[in-house]
Parts: sequence; C-alpha cells; structure tokens
Amino acid sequence: MPGNMGVVYEGPGKVEVHETEYPGFELKDGPGVNPANVGRKLPHAAILKTVATNICGSDQHMVRGRTTAPQGLVLGHEITGEVVETGPDVEYIKTGDLVSVPFNIACGRCRNCKEGKTGICENVNPDRPGSAYGYVDMGGWIGGQAQYVLVPYADWNLLKFPDKDRAMEKILDLAMLADIFPTGFHGCVSAGVGPGSSVYIAGAGPVGLAAAASALLLGAAVVIVADLNKERLDQAHSFGCETVNVALGDPKDQIEHILGEPEVDCGVDAVGFEARGHGRESETEHPATVLNTLMDVTRAGGALGIPGLYVTGDPGASDEAARHGSLSIRIGLGWAKSHSLVTGQCPVMRYNRQLMQAILHDRVQIAKAVNATPIPLDQAPRGYHEFDEGAARKYVLDPHGMLASAA
Amino acid sequence: MPGNMGVVYEGPGKVEVHETEYPGFELKDGPGVNPANVGRKLPHAAILKTVATNICGSDQHMVRGRTTAPQGLVLGHEITGEVVETGPDVEYIKTGDLVSVPFNIACGRCRNCKEGKTGICENVNPDRPGSAYGYVDMGGWIGGQAQYVLVPYADWNLLKFPDKDRAMEKILDLAMLADIFPTGFHGCVSAGVGPGSSVYIAGAGPVGLAAAASALLLGAAVVIVADLNKERLDQAHSFGCETVNVALGDPKDQIEHILGEPEVDCGVDAVGFEARGHGRESETEHPATVLNTLMDVTRAGGALGIPGLYVTGDPGASDEAARHGSLSIRIGLGWAKSHSLVTGQCPVMRYNRQLMQAILHDRVQIAKAVNATPIPLDQAPRGYHEFDEGAARKYVLDPHGMLASAA
Amino acid sequence: MPGNMGVVYEGPGKVEVHETEYPGFELKDGPGVNPANVGRKLPHAAILKTVATNICGSDQHMVRGRTTAPQGLVLGHEITGEVVETGPDVEYIKTGDLVSVPFNIACGRCRNCKEGKTGICENVNPDRPGSAYGYVDMGGWIGGQAQYVLVPYADWNLLKFPDKDRAMEKILDLAMLADIFPTGFHGCVSAGVGPGSSVYIAGAGPVGLAAAASALLLGAAVVIVADLNKERLDQAHSFGCETVNVALGDPKDQIEHILGEPEVDCGVDAVGFEARGHGRESETEHPATVLNTLMDVTRAGGALGIPGLYVTGDPGASDEAARHGSLSIRIGLGWAKSHSLVTGQCPVMRYNRQLMQAILHDRVQIAKAVNATPIPLDQAPRGYHEFDEGAARKYVLDPHGMLASAA
Amino acid sequence: MPGNMGVVYEGPGKVEVHETEYPGFELKDGPGVNPANVGRKLPHAAILKTVATNICGSDQHMVRGRTTAPQGLVLGHEITGEVVETGPDVEYIKTGDLVSVPFNIACGRCRNCKEGKTGICENVNPDRPGSAYGYVDMGGWIGGQAQYVLVPYADWNLLKFPDKDRAMEKILDLAMLADIFPTGFHGCVSAGVGPGSSVYIAGAGPVGLAAAASALLLGAAVVIVADLNKERLDQAHSFGCETVNVALGDPKDQIEHILGEPEVDCGVDAVGFEARGHGRESETEHPATVLNTLMDVTRAGGALGIPGLYVTGDPGASDEAARHGSLSIRIGLGWAKSHSLVTGQCPVMRYNRQLMQAILHDRVQIAKAVNATPIPLDQAPRGYHEFDEGAARKYVLDPHGMLASAA
Repeated sequence: MPGNMGVVYEGPGKVEVHETEYPGFELKDGPGVNPANVGRKLPHAAILKTVATNICGSDQHMVRGRTTAPQGLVLGHEITGEVVETGPDVEYIKTGDLVSVPFNIACGRCRNCKEGKTGICENVNPDRPGSAYGYVDMGGWIGGQAQYVLVPYADWNLLKFPDKDRAMEKILDLAMLADIFPTGFHGCVSAGVGPGSSVYIAGAGPVGLAAAASALLLGAAVVIVADLNKERLDQAHSFGCETVNVALGDPKDQIEHILGEPEVDCGVDAVGFEARGHGRESETEHPATVLNTLMDVTRAGGALGIPGLYVTGDPGASDEAARHGSLSIRIGLGWAKSHSLVTGQCPVMRYNRQLMQAILHDRVQIAKAVNATPIPLDQAPRGYHEFDEGAARKYVLDPHGMLASAA
Repeated sequence: MPGNMGVVYEGPGKVEVHETEYPGFELKDGPGVNPANVGRKLPHAAILKTVATNICGSDQHMVRGRTTAPQGLVLGHEITGEVVETGPDVEYIKTGDLVSVPFNIACGRCRNCKEGKTGICENVNPDRPGSAYGYVDMGGWIGGQAQYVLVPYADWNLLKFPDKDRAMEKILDLAMLADIFPTGFHGCVSAGVGPGSSVYIAGAGPVGLAAAASALLLGAAVVIVADLNKERLDQAHSFGCETVNVALGDPKDQIEHILGEPEVDCGVDAVGFEARGHGRESETEHPATVLNTLMDVTRAGGALGIPGLYVTGDPGASDEAARHGSLSIRIGLGWAKSHSLVTGQCPVMRYNRQLMQAILHDRVQIAKAVNATPIPLDQAPRGYHEFDEGAARKYVLDPHGMLASAA
Repeated sequence: MPGNMGVVYEGPGKVEVHETEYPGFELKDGPGVNPANVGRKLPHAAILKTVATNICGSDQHMVRGRTTAPQGLVLGHEITGEVVETGPDVEYIKTGDLVSVPFNIACGRCRNCKEGKTGICENVNPDRPGSAYGYVDMGGWIGGQAQYVLVPYADWNLLKFPDKDRAMEKILDLAMLADIFPTGFHGCVSAGVGPGSSVYIAGAGPVGLAAAASALLLGAAVVIVADLNKERLDQAHSFGCETVNVALGDPKDQIEHILGEPEVDCGVDAVGFEARGHGRESETEHPATVLNTLMDVTRAGGALGIPGLYVTGDPGASDEAARHGSLSIRIGLGWAKSHSLVTGQCPVMRYNRQLMQAILHDRVQIAKAVNATPIPLDQAPRGYHEFDEGAARKYVLDPHGMLASAA
Repeated sequence: MPGNMGVVYEGPGKVEVHETEYPGFELKDGPGVNPANVGRKLPHAAILKTVATNICGSDQHMVRGRTTAPQGLVLGHEITGEVVETGPDVEYIKTGDLVSVPFNIACGRCRNCKEGKTGICENVNPDRPGSAYGYVDMGGWIGGQAQYVLVPYADWNLLKFPDKDRAMEKILDLAMLADIFPTGFHGCVSAGVGPGSSVYIAGAGPVGLAAAASALLLGAAVVIVADLNKERLDQAHSFGCETVNVALGDPKDQIEHILGEPEVDCGVDAVGFEARGHGRESETEHPATVLNTLMDVTRAGGALGIPGLYVTGDPGASDEAARHGSLSIRIGLGWAKSHSLVTGQCPVMRYNRQLMQAILHDRVQIAKAVNATPIPLDQAPRGYHEFDEGAARKYVLDPHGMLASAA
C-alpha cells in the first residue's frame, strides 16, 4: 500500500501539506467525521490516484477561519483521477479508468438522487441533505487535495472519460468538471441564459469566469462580468466578456453604457455571502449586496441563478442576523419584477457529461477562461495564499506530476 | 349613456359608493392617473356592464392607508362582466359576450406579453412593468367595483365564456377567475405542486383558500393551510385541508403531527408583507415571517411559490429597511436546501381558460372553497370592513343584481 | 429454502402454473435468458415474497403467440412484494420492507438512469436499452407471476411503502404502481394533460382506464374513453368518464356531441399495435388506426402520449411492413397540426412515489377504476383467458393468499 | 401611391416578375384568396417597403407543381422591410421602423397565439390553424417577393430592429430571421440540442444549414449534416460541421466513423416529404426515408425535431397513401427507443428576438452559413431555377437595391 500526502487545514490562515492516511473501504474516525458516519462500510467505493485537484474559493471560507472547520481536516473537493482500486460492489467503473468526481457526494439510491438532485442527497451526510469531500459539516468525507482519495458509490458518482490519451491532452480543462464549470453553468441555466441573452455575472473569481464561459457556450449575446479586482476583470475581458468595475460606482450606469439600457435578461451570483459593497462601500463586507444588485439590474421577468454560497451560520459576520444566515434582501423589488431565484449547490451530474463533450470537441476553452494554473502539491500553501490575495488564477494541484508531464 | 356608480377610496379606513364617470374610449385625467397616460386613445377597448366584482385583500392595503393611494380612486380589479360596447379595433370580442377580466392589464404587443408574462406588460404602466385596474401606482386605469368599467386591449385581455346561460349558473365560481383562483393556482404551480405532493399554504384568506383548492385540483396528497384566524382555518378544513394554527406555536411541530415528518414538498406564501409573527409574536407584524417559515418547513429541493404581495415601499412599516421593501430573509437556510423562489403577480391569462373549463365541468368548487358571498354594490363599505376584521368570506359585489337573480 | 410456483408460457394460447426455481443471486441460463446475462452476479438484488402480481395486456401479446417468446418463460412484470432476503450490496432496503417493483429493470448507474430514463437502461438488456421481468427479448430476467422473485439493483429499483399496515389496507391500489397506473399517468403527462384539459383516451383496457383515472387526478375537465367493448366502456363511465364506442362510427362526431366541438386538447394511445379498426373495420386489425385517429381528433398544438406498445417485429402482422414495425401514419396531418408525439415505455420511477402518496391519502381509487380483481395464483390461466376475452377486469394474482386476507 | 412589382407563380415550373397591386388595408379577392377572407378589414396592418425577401425551399413545392397553387399567386413569405404606412390600430410600430416579418401570420388574440403557438393561429386562415404569406391554402395573404407588402396585426407580428444603421450592416443575416434561422433553430430545440450534444441534421439545404448553425450556437459538440448534394455538404463543412453523404450508403456507418458510435443524441429533419432515398435508392423519392433514418440513428431517449414539411395532400406522390399524406413509418423502432417527435411550423416569434441579438452581437454568422446571395428582384426566376438545381445558396431578392447598397 502506497503512502499518501494531503493538504491539511491547521487553523485560521494555515494550510500544510503532510502525510495523511491512505484510504480504505470504511470511513474511519478523524477530524470532522460525523460520528454517525464512523465505521461506515464502503464496498461501493473506488480509490483514485489523484491526477488533478483544484483549490476552490469555498475552501477559502474555511481557511480564513469563517467556519467551524476542525484542525486536521484534509481539504479538497475538486478531484480528477485514475481508478486504482474498486470495492466489491463496483460493477461498471474499472481500475485504470480516468474519471471526474462531482464535488457533491451522492448515493444514487435516495429520492433526491432519483430526481437528479444530487446536490442534496439524503444518505451521505447525517446532518442534512448534501455533502462534499473535505468540507466542514458535510459528513466527514476525506478531502481530495491528496495523492489518493476514496470516492463512495463509484458507479453512480464517477464520470469516465471515453479515451484516456485524448483526455490527458485536455486534462486541465477536464479538471474543471468537478465543480466550477458545472457550477458556473448551473448558475447560467438557472438564470435562464440562452442564445441571445444579455447576462450580468457578479464576481470574476473562477466560478464567475466559468459562468461567463458557460454563458458564451449557451449562446448569450452579451456577457457582463462585474468585480472589484482589475486583474480578474482583465481575465474576463480576455475571452470576450464586457466588464463592470463595481468599485467605480453603480453597475446600472455601467450596464447602460454597454447595452444602451440599464438592465439585463439574466443575473448570476458567483460571489455569495462574503461580498463586499459597491462604490464607496467596497472596502467592507455587505453580504446582501450582490443579491440586491442583481434584483436591481435584472429586467422584470428575469431570473437569478445563485450558485454563490450562502451559509446558515457565519460566526465572523458583522451583525447578529448575518451570523445566522439572515440578510436584508430587497424582496419587494424582486417581487415587483416577478423575479425567480434559484439557489443551492450545483447538481454536477446533471451537466458534467455534456460539458465534457463540449471540452473534448473544442467547443469551450474553460481552463484558459479561468486561467487554470497547475502547481505541485507541496506548493498548495502558496496557491491558497495567492488565490486569497486575488490572483486571477485557478490553482490546480498536481500530486503526481502528471499535469506537468501532459503539458 | 347610462350613469355609473363605483366604490371610491376616500382616505384611510374609508370607502364610499357614489357616482363615478361612465367610461369612454380615452383615458382621462383623475385621481391616480399617470400624466403619461392622460389622453391615451383606447380604440382597442371594450366597455363592460359589471356582473360581479370582488373585494381583494390587496385592496385592503390601500384602504388601511399603507400606500400612497390618492383620495378619489375608484377601486376594484376583480371583474366579470357583459360587453356593452367595443372600440373600432376590437375584432373578436362582441357586444353581449360574458367575459372574465384578468386583473393584470396587458397590451398583447410587447416582449413580455409575447412571452406570456402578462403580469409585467411593458406598455400599460408608464412607471414600470405591470399594471392593474383601480390600483395605486399602476398607471391610472379606472377600477371595476362599479356598474361599468373599461377594459383596454379587449381582444387580448378578455376571456369569453362559451355559453352565457351555463356560465350564469356558475357565475360566482367564474367570478374567481379574474384574480384569486389563478393567483392561488400560480402559487401552487410555482411551488411545484402536482399529484401526490404535500403542500404548506401560509394564509387562509381568499388567496390561500384558492391556493388550497388549486392544490387539490392539481392532485396534491395533503394540503396544509396555516393561519392565525380560526374561522378561516375552519373554512379550509371544510373542503378537505389539514390546518395549522400558527398562533399555537411552531408550524414544524404541527406539520410533523399531521404528516409524520416535519417538512412538506412545496410551500406557498399567500400572505405577503403584512404578515404577523407566529406563536407569541402573532400580535405584531413580522413581514418576513412567512418567507422564513416556508424555508424552514419546505424540504430540500422544494420550491416556494410567492403570490403574496411584497412592495417596494411601505410607509407604515415598523423599520427603515422594511419601509423600502427590504426584509431580513434566511437566505442561508434556503440556499442550503437548494430552494427556488418564484415571486410576482400571477399572469392570469396563463391559467384562466383552463380553470374556467375545470369550473364549467364541475371539477372544482372554488366559490364554495373561498366562501364567496355576494352583496349589493352599495354595501361595499360593510364588505371591506368585515373582510378587514377577518371574516372567512370572499365578498363579491353585485352592481346590477345579476348575482342575486342567478342564485 | 422454500419452493416456488410460477405462471409459465407453454406455447401459443397456453399458460400453466407449475413449480419454478427459487431465485438466487446469480442469473442462470433458462428459457429466454440472453447468453450475455448468464452467470451475471447480483449482489445488489433482493428476493421478494410476492404479495400481488398482475396480468398485463402486454403479456397477452406473448400468450397469443404474436412474439418469439420461448416455451418455459416465467411470465409477469407487475410485482408488489415483501423483501425476504437482500444481497450484500443492498444498503437501504431491508428484509421485511413492503415494496413496489417498477416493471422496467434499471441499473441506476448508466447515463439513461442518471437522466431519469429508467425505461431504457443501458446495462440490463444486452440486446438494446430497456428491460422488464418475464418478457421476451428483454434480457432474460425471471418473471414475477410467482411466489418468489428476484429484483436486481434493489436500492435503486424498489419503492418502499412507508407503513406496512396502512399499505396492506390499500394493497390492491398499490399493486397498480408497478405498471399500469404510472403507465397511464405517463401517457397523460406526455399528452400535456392538466387542469381543465379535454382528453381522448383510446382504449378502455386497464392501461386506458388507468390513464383515465390519471387524467382526472391531473384535473382534466373532460375525459373521453374510446373502445369497441361495451363492458369496458361502462367501467370507464362508472368513475366519471365520457365514452365513445368506436364500433359505432367516427369518433370525431361522437366527440362533437360530447364537447360541442370535434377536437380535444390531448390524445392518449392506450392500445398499441394490436388495434382494430373503427366502424365497419372494427372486426379486423388496423395497427395504425389509433395513431391516425388521435391525429384527427387532437387539436392543433396538442400532444399525443403513446404508452401503447408498438413493436419492431410482429410475425403475425397482416402485411410485410407491419411485420417489421412500419405502419402507415398520417404524418402530414400531424405536421399540419404541429403535433408532438411521445412514445415508449413509461419510466415508472419518475411517478410511482407521488402516485403512492395520492393512493395513501385517498386522492384516487385506481383499483376501483380498473376493476382490480384478485384471484389465486393457480387460477392464472383463467385470468389470462377471461382477460383475453375482453373482461373489464384487471386480474391480480395472489400467490400467498395475502390479498384475500387483506380484503 | 407607388406601383408594385412581384414574383408570380404562373404554372408548373414557371415564375415571372411583373406588376402587382400595391397593398391596401383590406384583403381583396384574387388568386388563392379564401372567400371567407375577401373583404377583411385590416386597420391593424402595416405596409412595408421590402428590403430583403428570400426564396424558400417550400416555395419550390408550389413551383414544381406539387400543390394546388393557382396561377397568379404572388409568392414569398420571408420578408424584411421598412414600414411605410400603418393602419389606425397600430400603436407601437411606426413608419420608418426596420422590421423582420415572421413567415407565420398570427392574430395575437386567439388561444394559440396567447399560448405562443403562432404557427397555428386560429384567426387568419379560414381553412385551418396556421397561415403564411404567398402560400397555397393559407388563407390568401399576398406574398412578399415584391416591392411592397402588407403585414396584418403589425404590433403583434413585427420584430423591430433596435438600430437601423447597425441593422443595415448585418441585413443579410437579419433577413434570415423571417423563416429559416428560427425554423432551423426550432428543429434543434425540439430535438433537445444543448451544450455537448451530438446532432444529426438531415438535409443541407438552407434550413438544414440554418439548423447546423443553430446547433453550434446552442453549444452542440458535434454537428453532422447529411445530404446527397456534395456542394451543399461542402458548405456545411465550411463552418465546422461533419458531413454524411447519404448517396454513399448507410448513414449509421458514417456516423460511427465520425463519433466512434453509430448513434447521435438528437435528430433534425430539414428535408420533409420530398426526400429521396439513401444509397442505391437516392435517385427516387422515398418520402419517409428521413424520418426512418432519424429513428435509426438517434439514440434511445433522444428526440426528433421535424421542421421539414409534411403535407396532408401531395397529388404528385408515387403511391396512394402518400397522396393523402400517409407514410410508412418505423414507429415500432421509435417506440422501442422512447423517441419523442416534434412536428410543425416553427413559431418564429418564440425565437426571432433572441436570434436577432445573437446576430447583432456577432455570435453567429447565419448569412455566411447558408451562403446568402442577394440578387435583384427581376432575377428571381433565375434564383428559383438555380436553387432547384441544388445550388448551395440561399437567394435573397433585393427589390429596391438596398442590399446592394448596404454591401
């Protein structure tokens, strides 16, 4: 049995790469493992040699100390790998398969899974519907920023790439299938984006950029990306998006300048609860700013896709209501405009096969859009730090040097 | 030309029935008429002799003085009538037709109308998309709680009943097609109600009861109606609903008692911004209570239909944010449960023909469900008063005694 | 290990009840078992003690000798049972659970299953997508008209009734969840049936009657059922349907007599390829009659739900084209009316949970609608014979006398 | 009043350009005008100076003498123009507006129009739902291959381009909005095309090429276009499509060569009833070939979009059934694969605004894809002839030399 190395949360502001346990077909006790999950048998699982594993903005919430994540938690929920071992119940996935792992863990046997709502599977997280690898309060599934990782319900969860060699040629693009590409795409679909749409995407981080690339793939006429970070806006501009710098004032005026009218068809929130204000208020957090701006700039009859994370508890919030996940939302305005709001985790499995095909047939350059940047596993702390500083990059860890070889 | 009598708002708490102008094919100046609409030619309009015209909960917002409605406003947006005159551009609607009038005025020629979003027509209200008869800030179209009323874009807006005699036999039911039946139905459709659903409907006023009847028509397995008003809960119980008295404490416990689990598939808000709290807080207004309760009691993956009215300005609200239509909403909880929220006016035209057929073929008893109660036009002030006191009735004004004759 | 008794096809016109093998967790060779399935390991399976197992119209195609079904085939794909044993990979279904079995066998792991298309699972039938128990050319899964039956992928396929005692009180209704209730319902959903619809259902056999009950559950205003068999039409009439006797001539005239217009909103084909003609042609088979009639009687813009079976090979057909599944269809008429046609097996899992809730909460009386009639297992041959003669009954076999006890 | 020149059908194989009547606000008697439409008042109409008007494949059906089109019929239903006069009921469209005309005439006031089904409007064609300009059996509305043309219900039917100058720069692209671009797009939407799809489009005429461009705009991964005409296949290849030459044998083999599997996700019929056979049968008409091939090559669970025209009567068909619009269709195969079939005229208004935005923002080059080729009005006979010979061009008539000026 090989050893294992992983990226571990060691307290606010601190991630380290050190030895971690090699996975087995049973969920053992450890940091953040829900007691009800301890000892859970996993004959339906596969063990993966990690080929690519990305750092995600939602990991930063934990690393910044904004959550109750315990010290010792192995991080990482964006995983692409090669199957090295399968449990006795795995029938269709085979050793040697190159696969993408949806970040949301799902059983494939509950009501929600049967309805395609794999983001809120009822059987994997004893606390509530929905789960993910390496994440606080998600049941205790070990993170994938590691050399090896276990994936339960492998036949259900894994997406196999049809041709390994061809896949390795586009592996940086395919690595985005685990989370941000489907997540950005889901935001667009939820917002009703289609051919000819005008779209406003709040946030030019990796999810926002992935949403922008998705909007273009869906045929949108004009994609406007908004942020405070000039480097990230430049990145958005590089692949055909219009941009709004919310530090410079009211987005509505800037939208009117671009479109000739102050409203768009569709709004996407790719920021979530750690939003900062616009204009003069951009130095401080205003957690409802994005939602309220979207209601302002989206036309009557439009929809808001909200893949950006909102939490039920935020110990570091600036007011009592926000600490419990309550925000002051202009629902009166949204109602007057007959808006629909679609929230929640993206059910990755609903989209990943189709998006894989779009990548394999050169219909989208997602790695380029999000500026995917491979770095060795042991440089994960630097990746976390630079990403937190606002680098316009999506860091992809390369635990076995396979990305470097493929490039 | 006959005279006209109408129900007029004469200041907070005060409605009077007195003579009003007989309609003509031009929109004249008057209380609440938007200057941009003054002098508007209406060759596409029809004039109706009002057969039934209902008092609506949203009228009460104005009458209670919660809005900027001007004195002299003729009220009423729930109209059923007989066509007595048509403008030169009306081609298919004919004098003598018995018709239902969707409360939302729509032009049938703008982008939103072409998309079936008649609740947010772009051409009838100079202030913003969406309009209605006899309502503050809706363009200035004269209300229909009157003997005669004008309906613009008659070929587009009017729903003709196929057989007048047969329609008169069910006229009290058909009178609900102008607003509350489609509105309640839209709340259910937006919430995803279908065969086998469990549904929680907040509010047992007429819209809530109409939503409950709609849920049953849609095949729901269990329909739970919640309110503080025992008489209205009894009304809900009378046609097969379960009930939750929110004055008695947490709805979740009561739901568990009914269903064996504390959550429902679908949530409908038939209350809106004038909500009062639950349990001990039920004496005072808590405008976000209903939305937050719906997030609490609706299962992960469920949807919330929100036909209840939320406003962009509420001068009488208890806090500054609410005065501008901002409420403290548990969006973190909703997000964790992947909820969808669908807001806004019901686009009546999307549903009224089908619901008319359900009425005419005895598939639903909507008048009985909402306890429709005809009263003469001159007793409108009593109707307003009793309804405001919480009577479990839907008052239907009978300007020409035709309801009394039909009964 | 107990013995087993089952209903076996012994050649055209001949079914017998005799001893069959007790199921094991491996698919063995036998009549009709696809060689590629022989020896298939089934650790994911459950063995059921059959509580109810229905005779289906599609079984008759085999028994009449219209297919290549081999002698010795154990029949039956409409199964309700109690779990008596589970394989090592079954995690959520437990011994003692009372369950409904969707007639379409699905793996829960392929692309189609993930998309909810369980009627065309890619992994259970080596010949082509889609499978069923006890059916010719469907992979060789042993039929369930027996005392005991094996169900593969039990966690995915089985629908557990929440309360056994309460379920046994409605067991005859719940027995319809395995096939005909969802199948009829799917036909209606595919045809766009909703509140207020007018619906024409071709065929008053069990699927047609189930479709009619479904249409009413969905809120249809008028449900018209058509057949040649007066007893079956009387059965349809007994629960509120209008009827058309196609032996008496053109359905369009009869529809006009009922509705005042000669067309309906929605058409459902609950007959399939063994259709006989209308009027004077009703003595002989006219396999495209139903489809062509539906195009004639369904309004422009309407849809046709086609759950009735059409086959790729019909050795007994009267012309060469039909022997290969080609029929002469009035596609020009359908095109002029912008019709949509939705074909194929019902994906039972999409509907069975919701319909179970509708049954358990008394919102539909499906057993009564289809005249469900329990008979002992050993009287299966009589059941087949009487059903083939046109009895207006749905025969439900009772292998352990549990239906008799429950009644 | 100016004069008018138009393209007139003068018998099988014969079109001429000669003087025609200048339009007025009343529908007068003439070749092909339905008696019930004679004298119809049109105060809701606008008169257009035709800027571009295309020759359509469906015009060829008439010109080839395959219909009952009367001599003297002014042809043309693909119209783009400038408004020169409006009737008294036109409120929002103004003189000077540059507009696209959906080929399907719709009233904007009937049930079907209210449901967005403008391809089957109930009020414009006395014979049956659905109408078009300059077409046999469509009510008698005068064709638009002329210098001036009348458009009824102008506020409802016309799509105004937001900026005239910018529109004239892309006028050849925008000219495709009247019919073939939305029609091809509708075929794709009906077939379920989305990001990542593999699509088989039968026919590389203008509608097929427009469908191919639409599929790419919708994000399809692989678009395969099939035809017998090498020049048209080369045109498809020029903008990124794969091609199948059906003259060379079974499309399934060629598809497998392209995709590595013999089936696609989605099938589009852009040919219709005048299809010729495949392989050895490609010299003769086989009207059901395309439908049957689509069933063969589309995967189980896929859908077929059928914008290609099928007719209720085809006097020139080779067999009696086909003369009445009945074709021998492999419905058994389609049923086994759970196919959906969506037929009928494209409701242009559902898509034209969005596709206009896609054109104006450079997201699609539709004129280039279909090889739009402007020619003077008086060269229409040559255009008809060359198109009939199989030229890989979409001929656009230029009645006022405005296309030549814009180029």
